[in-house]
Amino acid sequence: MKIIGQHIKNIPWEEKPVHSDQVIWRYSKNPIIPRDLLKTSNSIFNSAVVPFKDGFAGVFRCDNKARQMKIHRGFSKDGINWTIDEKSIQFIAHDENTLATSDYQYDPRVVEIDGRFFIQWCNGYHGPTIGLGYTDDFESFYQMENAFLPFNRNGVLFPRKINNHYVMLSRPSDTGHTAFGDIFLSQSKDLIYWGKHRFVLGVAPFEQSAWQTLKIGAGPAPIETTEGWLLFYHGVLRSCNGYHYSMGVALLDLEDPSKVVARSKDYLLAPATSYELMGDVANVIFPCAALADAKTGKIAIYYGAADTVTGMAFTTIEKLIPWLMSNNLLDEQ
Amino acid sequence: MKIIGQHIKNIPWEEKPVHSDQVIWRYSKNPIIPRDLLKTSNSIFNSAVVPFKDGFAGVFRCDNKARQMKIHRGFSKDGINWTIDEKSIQFIAHDENTLATSDYQYDPRVVEIDGRFFIQWCNGYHGPTIGLGYTDDFESFYQMENAFLPFNRNGVLFPRKINNHYVMLSRPSDTGHTAFGDIFLSQSKDLIYWGKHRFVLGVAPFEQSAWQTLKIGAGPAPIETTEGWLLFYHGVLRSCNGYHYSMGVALLDLEDPSKVVARSKDYLLAPATSYELMGDVANVIFPCAALADAKTGKIAIYYGAADTVTGMAFTTIEKLIPWLMSNNLLDEQ
Amino acid sequence: MKIIGQHIKNIPWEEKPVHSDQVIWRYSKNPIIPRDLLKTSNSIFNSAVVPFKDGFAGVFRCDNKARQMKIHRGFSKDGINWTIDEKSIQFIAHDENTLATSDYQYDPRVVEIDGRFFIQWCNGYHGPTIGLGYTDDFESFYQMENAFLPFNRNGVLFPRKINNHYVMLSRPSDTGHTAFGDIFLSQSKDLIYWGKHRFVLGVAPFEQSAWQTLKIGAGPAPIETTEGWLLFYHGVLRSCNGYHYSMGVALLDLEDPSKVVARSKDYLLAPATSYELMGDVANVIFPCAALADAKTGKIAIYYGAADTVTGMAFTTIEKLIPWLMSNNLLDEQ
Amino acid sequence: MKIIGQHIKNIPWEEKPVHSDQVIWRYSKNPIIPRDLLKTSNSIFNSAVVPFKDGFAGVFRCDNKARQMKIHRGFSKDGINWTIDEKSIQFIAHDENTLATSDYQYDPRVVEIDGRFFIQWCNGYHGPTIGLGYTDDFESFYQMENAFLPFNRNGVLFPRKINNHYVMLSRPSDTGHTAFGDIFLSQSKDLIYWGKHRFVLGVAPFEQSAWQTLKIGAGPAPIETTEGWLLFYHGVLRSCNGYHYSMGVALLDLEDPSKVVARSKDYLLAPATSYELMGDVANVIFPCAALADAKTGKIAIYYGAADTVTGMAFTTIEKLIPWLMSNNLLDEQ
Amino acid sequence: MKIIGQHIKNIPWEEKPVHSDQVIWRYSKNPIIPRDLLKTSNSIFNSAVVPFKDGFAGVFRCDNKARQMKIHRGFSKDGINWTIDEKSIQFIAHDENTLATSDYQYDPRVVEIDGRFFIQWCNGYHGPTIGLGYTDDFESFYQMENAFLPFNRNGVLFPRKINNHYVMLSRPSDTGHTAFGDIFLSQSKDLIYWGKHRFVLGVAPFEQSAWQTLKIGAGPAPIETTEGWLLFYHGVLRSCNGYHYSMGVALLDLEDPSKVVARSKDYLLAPATSYELMGDVANVIFPCAALADAKTGKIAIYYGAADTVTGMAFTTIEKLIPWLMSNNLLDEQ
Amino acid sequence: MKIIGQHIKNIPWEEKPVHSDQVIWRYSKNPIIPRDLLKTSNSIFNSAVVPFKDGFAGVFRCDNKARQMKIHRGFSKDGINWTIDEKSIQFIAHDENTLATSDYQYDPRVVEIDGRFFIQWCNGYHGPTIGLGYTDDFESFYQMENAFLPFNRNGVLFPRKINNHYVMLSRPSDTGHTAFGDIFLSQSKDLIYWGKHRFVLGVAPFEQSAWQTLKIGAGPAPIETTEGWLLFYHGVLRSCNGYHYSMGVALLDLEDPSKVVARSKDYLLAPATSYELMGDVANVIFPCAALADAKTGKIAIYYGAADTVTGMAFTTIEKLIPWLMSNNLLDEQ
Repeated sequence: MKIIGQHIKNIPWEEKPVHSDQVIWRYSKNPIIPRDLLKTSNSIFNSAVVPFKDGFAGVFRCDNKARQMKIHRGFSKDGINWTIDEKSIQFIAHDENTLATSDYQYDPRVVEIDGRFFIQWCNGYHGPTIGLGYTDDFESFYQMENAFLPFNRNGVLFPRKINNHYVMLSRPSDTGHTAFGDIFLSQSKDLIYWGKHRFVLGVAPFEQSAWQTLKIGAGPAPIETTEGWLLFYHGVLRSCNGYHYSMGVALLDLEDPSKVVARSKDYLLAPATSYELMGDVANVIFPCAALADAKTGKIAIYYGAADTVTGMAFTTIEKLIPWLMSNNLLDEQ
Repeated sequence: MKIIGQHIKNIPWEEKPVHSDQVIWRYSKNPIIPRDLLKTSNSIFNSAVVPFKDGFAGVFRCDNKARQMKIHRGFSKDGINWTIDEKSIQFIAHDENTLATSDYQYDPRVVEIDGRFFIQWCNGYHGPTIGLGYTDDFESFYQMENAFLPFNRNGVLFPRKINNHYVMLSRPSDTGHTAFGDIFLSQSKDLIYWGKHRFVLGVAPFEQSAWQTLKIGAGPAPIETTEGWLLFYHGVLRSCNGYHYSMGVALLDLEDPSKVVARSKDYLLAPATSYELMGDVANVIFPCAALADAKTGKIAIYYGAADTVTGMAFTTIEKLIPWLMSNNLLDEQ
Repeated sequence: MKIIGQHIKNIPWEEKPVHSDQVIWRYSKNPIIPRDLLKTSNSIFNSAVVPFKDGFAGVFRCDNKARQMKIHRGFSKDGINWTIDEKSIQFIAHDENTLATSDYQYDPRVVEIDGRFFIQWCNGYHGPTIGLGYTDDFESFYQMENAFLPFNRNGVLFPRKINNHYVMLSRPSDTGHTAFGDIFLSQSKDLIYWGKHRFVLGVAPFEQSAWQTLKIGAGPAPIETTEGWLLFYHGVLRSCNGYHYSMGVALLDLEDPSKVVARSKDYLLAPATSYELMGDVANVIFPCAALADAKTGKIAIYYGAADTVTGMAFTTIEKLIPWLMSNNLLDEQ
Repeated sequence: MKIIGQHIKNIPWEEKPVHSDQVIWRYSKNPIIPRDLLKTSNSIFNSAVVPFKDGFAGVFRCDNKARQMKIHRGFSKDGINWTIDEKSIQFIAHDENTLATSDYQYDPRVVEIDGRFFIQWCNGYHGPTIGLGYTDDFESFYQMENAFLPFNRNGVLFPRKINNHYVMLSRPSDTGHTAFGDIFLSQSKDLIYWGKHRFVLGVAPFEQSAWQTLKIGAGPAPIETTEGWLLFYHGVLRSCNGYHYSMGVALLDLEDPSKVVARSKDYLLAPATSYELMGDVANVIFPCAALADAKTGKIAIYYGAADTVTGMAFTTIEKLIPWLMSNNLLDEQ
Repeated sequence: MKIIGQHIKNIPWEEKPVHSDQVIWRYSKNPIIPRDLLKTSNSIFNSAVVPFKDGFAGVFRCDNKARQMKIHRGFSKDGINWTIDEKSIQFIAHDENTLATSDYQYDPRVVEIDGRFFIQWCNGYHGPTIGLGYTDDFESFYQMENAFLPFNRNGVLFPRKINNHYVMLSRPSDTGHTAFGDIFLSQSKDLIYWGKHRFVLGVAPFEQSAWQTLKIGAGPAPIETTEGWLLFYHGVLRSCNGYHYSMGVALLDLEDPSKVVARSKDYLLAPATSYELMGDVANVIFPCAALADAKTGKIAIYYGAADTVTGMAFTTIEKLIPWLMSNNLLDEQ
Repeated sequence: MKIIGQHIKNIPWEEKPVHSDQVIWRYSKNPIIPRDLLKTSNSIFNSAVVPFKDGFAGVFRCDNKARQMKIHRGFSKDGINWTIDEKSIQFIAHDENTLATSDYQYDPRVVEIDGRFFIQWCNGYHGPTIGLGYTDDFESFYQMENAFLPFNRNGVLFPRKINNHYVMLSRPSDTGHTAFGDIFLSQSKDLIYWGKHRFVLGVAPFEQSAWQTLKIGAGPAPIETTEGWLLFYHGVLRSCNGYHYSMGVALLDLEDPSKVVARSKDYLLAPATSYELMGDVANVIFPCAALADAKTGKIAIYYGAADTVTGMAFTTIEKLIPWLMSNNLLDEQ
């Protein structure tokens, strides 16, 4: 039961509170990024972080005071205290045939594949779809073709090719506050043309696991483990007062990630603190990044809280996998 | 102006704050039951309490972390500090022809009739309907036939037969977050077959009493008084941000409880504290139980707050009835 | 494979057209009742017919030009040409405790049980519910208690007691143009108090039988056959232009009619003629009555067309049962 | 760059916090009016204030505990601490042909024109429309004809005639929680008959300024400045959890106020404090009044917070106008 | 019981069919105007007609094949056979301050007041509102100020001043397929500034008169009679398949037309012929014009059928008024 | 002004009626395929036709009486009289990694590319998406990978590669009766992996061309002409009674078909005959196939009528292109 990947020696970390019996715990100094960290920001949340050089780099969703959604670069020594650029990332077209325009950019993910950092985000091109770009140095950023037709959100690349294909999860959507949503997988040989789409994970029956009954969407890039690809994801329940976002976790087959090995019946984390229960959109926990240390099994998750600020939560692979296996929704079906 | 019924000598109680001029007041240590009292609970609210032996017993709505809705048994010496079973109540079929299955169980009420404790709840049987069960000892619980066809919620039994009939209030509903709802009454000779349904209480005109314009539903079992059956109920207003639940009170005729004697134009209690304004469903006060002491006229009400925790509020029959009579919506109609 | 019941020697009948290969066929002179048969009628449809004396009697839904929905008495020698009263039926309260008021009355069914003719209809009492009445002579009509709480439609009694209980099918609904609906069964010893409710028949999966995916509802009183209770029912599909009503058929277990023996995957009859495709509500076939001759196996069905006029269709038990058995939706599930 | 108008020597004021770099800042003791200032009040918000004698007078929206919406008179020495009448304003009919009835009264504005104080509010007359009244002394209040047909809200008079016409802004609406809304202007010679309606300000494109994409509405009476009429207004964004109200500002042409000179792309103030994020309607900032001192350029704004309490914010004309000019949405269009 | 007004000696007319017992009867050669009378027309309906010179003139709603809604001039000798201009009416601004632009123009009415022909229509100015124009000769057409703010439809002027005011009926609406709507009245001294708005006629209770429960709107200009102003209007019922439009009639007080003298409980005419039941919008009868001959009491009504073609129907004042009086919805209320 | 492509000597054809002045005309014997051509069919419509051998082959949408949507093979000598298989097409998986399953199959298009016949249809795979298959002989049919993720409809391949890419139009959708929809283009080198998605054609402004304001979708495979790719498409208007489908036409740039050369402001054909105005979904004209004869310029269009039957209409390239150029919506924008 191990994480397969790099050793992140300075992974941000806080031990589990003594009194807690939960498999995951919030950082005691949450939120780590306040809504007004930037002079122009209305909110900073749903953001992506990767190890970079001797610290960390990130791509942050910063909504400005016109409520425009843009993604910004940031750096941190410790993964907790961040410096974020006031100006949003300006992408350069990947090649002469590529569009590099966006009506908006939000909910970025970042994953390193073979030394190059790929950014996926919700990109405004006649509707929301999956934007794709890359940087080698967090200085120059290149925008590739959109992966899919609109309407899509929550595009998440796996951190390596599988069977000679790049693999991307996504959540086909509609034009508005989509009231449905399952996770699909698509494959590509070149990150430009995509096909061989497969259904991966759908919403759960209300009677079995109500927090993930309206829609679900992949969170951070899947983490490779000896047990399968570890996928944190968000699930949504519709109450009489709107949408309610929680976080769960699944394991996908290493060789064929369209096969689901396990999936949490209980949520891992649901809104319960004031910064999760109050904000621009109350009752939202939305994970977009995770750092996983192969040596110690530590996992640090970054999540947007109430669509307003950014929080962190911690777990370990040794705690998480057994919890998932004993809490597997597939066992009921 | 008296409560007709038992003397509850250890009724939970806190005196009215000196500065308050309200007819009802919250317990200063609310919420009495936090959302995570159980290891597995997401929230504990909308629950029922009765005097039992030298203390109190209760049936609690405990949503677990899969957001499944189940009802659990609990005990308390003082009515405030509760021990609740981690495991939900397992009902035994009442007789061989009875179904004892439920997709979900929520919003329980408990009432003692002739020494037997009857439990009513919202029971999932191809949609929400009124589940009915009983226990004599809070050890063995028996499930009877559902009282009605779906779709129904907020079934509430009177604490004694009236004109040789058991009488139950209920609120016919639909399959979702029902956007309408009036209180009806049904009668039965055996708690199995029900009929002689009568309209009791409908929503109020917006111009007269807006907090109860979308839907209303009975709360605790009606309390017998010299003035009539005292019925606490919830009322709902739809704002641009969703449903808003407050508590009111009505008096029904002792002999024919389909006749309404009085009904509060003002609400008794509306969301105003942080545990009522924040939570899984913000802005909810939902009463499901009340203890009434015939000797002193004290009334202690248990209510779900924000669909997350359980709170208490206090009043007395001497304060309540005159307030209701001078604040009677029927006087305007 | 026989009908169990009376011989109706003058059952209205027309032979199957030579060229047809269908199991059911329309009457060539449809509609048998035009919308303006009454001086005051806007439309006459969704009506009930029974053998009576040496001819037939019926209870007809006649919407007047104020579009008020009322039920009227009618007589016919041949079951095809009808004389309908201009004035709607005036019910007398069954006993002193019974309400005999209705905001509206529609979609009647009539069934003879032990020589008494029972009428069930959609009755307006603070919303639609199942009205119940009877006549012994089609002269005096008595209204009993509503069978259920609102909101309910399509209440249909079985033509005899089963296991000492009267049995009624119904379709719980909501306050408007209900967008859901399954068929349930309820039981009563006295036609006043009802209980022991069971789920019978739900909507079908879209991929398997789309015409019955939105809602379904019982049609004429079930016909007793050697194979089980034969139940004609309507099913609804929602197109981008509204609801589309077709007719299907099911077989229920004779002893326990909550058990479904077979159910048609194909519809029996769907809107295809101009009087079904045009009218107050286009695209509606809604059966409410059937005459079944035990001797010949002939079945004559009365249905409302386009919520405007009344049509007839014919089949025989020998044709229908094998068709149903080879077209059984349960075989796929 | 000056305010044209009176000198308000005792304008309520608090200096900008040292650390702030914003153009507007909240009063540190917000909310200035709690929800329960009146014995009968559920909430006090969206209210109007004017200089009066040596202090200030106001007309306050006080929703009572029946959630009826009424407007009440109040006085204050300092503009911050208010005494509000328990009883709502009783209007006298302006002349014998005028109706002085209202199903409800909410969101008042007050403006002094030629020594008379005119009150505009949302008036219930077969739906919401713009009520109009006046007082000369804050003792006797007279109700004039409703300015417009229903359905309308946010009627706001300019503080003087323009080209011999009284000019009123309004926001045509529908019967419910209107999901659209632009600002129009109407003209009158006598405050009774209105015409020459012109479109002024519409919602913004989502990609450019999302906080004002669903609907907008005028706030306090426009403030005359050397640069044009300064108009604070609210803008609404629809999230998956409901409506979200922020405040912006525009400049209208002095001679033809249907011409927009500038309009803020960023919001000025959006919900961020607990009294704005929690309450009867979470996430609402709704300005209805402003005091502007011509001598110092100080502007004090009163706004409803979360439809529950009243807060204040401050700015100066010297800070505001340059900010607006460099943040002008029109520059993008 | 007489029409007050002009003698139209060549009023189009067809006697009542011998077999009919209805108060109103359709023209046997309906539709009089087919959808493709113009080379460019998709449909011609909801149109206005007046006596002009020795024949008739009209303003017709002609939707072209781009489905743009425009109004066109037409002439007829007999009121039945029409010549309509291929080109739509081009309005000239009434004075220099008037806007003469329209995004669309539909559902015109025409009324002669003091020798000038006033045209009212639904005019697109940032939403639908009431456009107002005039012609003296049906050669030059002038557009005045819109009467009201958006959103409004079905503006209908009375044929003379009442108490020194021009009086217009209208039906405040919303931005789309408005699902509500009552008739109000507004007054003006100059046809430019409007005020003194009064509620006239609302939708009816479903139980009493369902065809007019969703919305209603004035039809032709009111006809002056000795009994009051005779107003034909349309009423709408919502079925599960959309809106259903019928025609009714009311009598308003001659001196104060906001007072309703009588109102038909039954509809006068509802969709029943193929040209009313099939078309661009099935099930629509929408009257916009009527010719009334004071000498004979004959009334000829023009109505749009199925939003596609134009039909006519006939009645007489002597038949209509008694029918209305014995069918008065007010008698029930 | 010529069609580029094959000579279809036996193209089905009927000359334009003498009296008509329209650019397109219906076949006088429409519908050519009745709803019950198959014993099991409920309806046959929205179908595809190509020249094959010395006659024609087709793929037909046949909804059966369970209202399951399947595609069937058919042959015809003359393109008008068709023989259609009772059994639906059984696809063979294209290769071992391909899924060949479908919950449903509808609205097929067929296009010949380099001698192979490619079929595109709306394929049910966890929602509607674009299914892709081929046949070389209309005997064996092979199913390839779905082109896109759900939710998509109206996938239409160009009849040859453009710049070395296969090019497909499609209309991204949602899960239900999608209320939006623009036409996009995607490119592929191998018909398996798709990318380089471009926006092509969006809905039109209501004021300019209302028939195509809700959604639009490509119809038959584009026809190559000297002026560009000729694309017939459907456009939808939402009335108060549902969706209304008409047909229009556009010209796309030959080299870069994401560039629109012209687009019809008027519709070409809109529902006007009884078989278009009545049926399972009234008011639908939905083109899915066209035969174009390069020699004569004749074009024969097949369209689904009222989602029930199949009709034909005719035009010529010489008539159509000038009409389009003088009726070009782009000229207004």
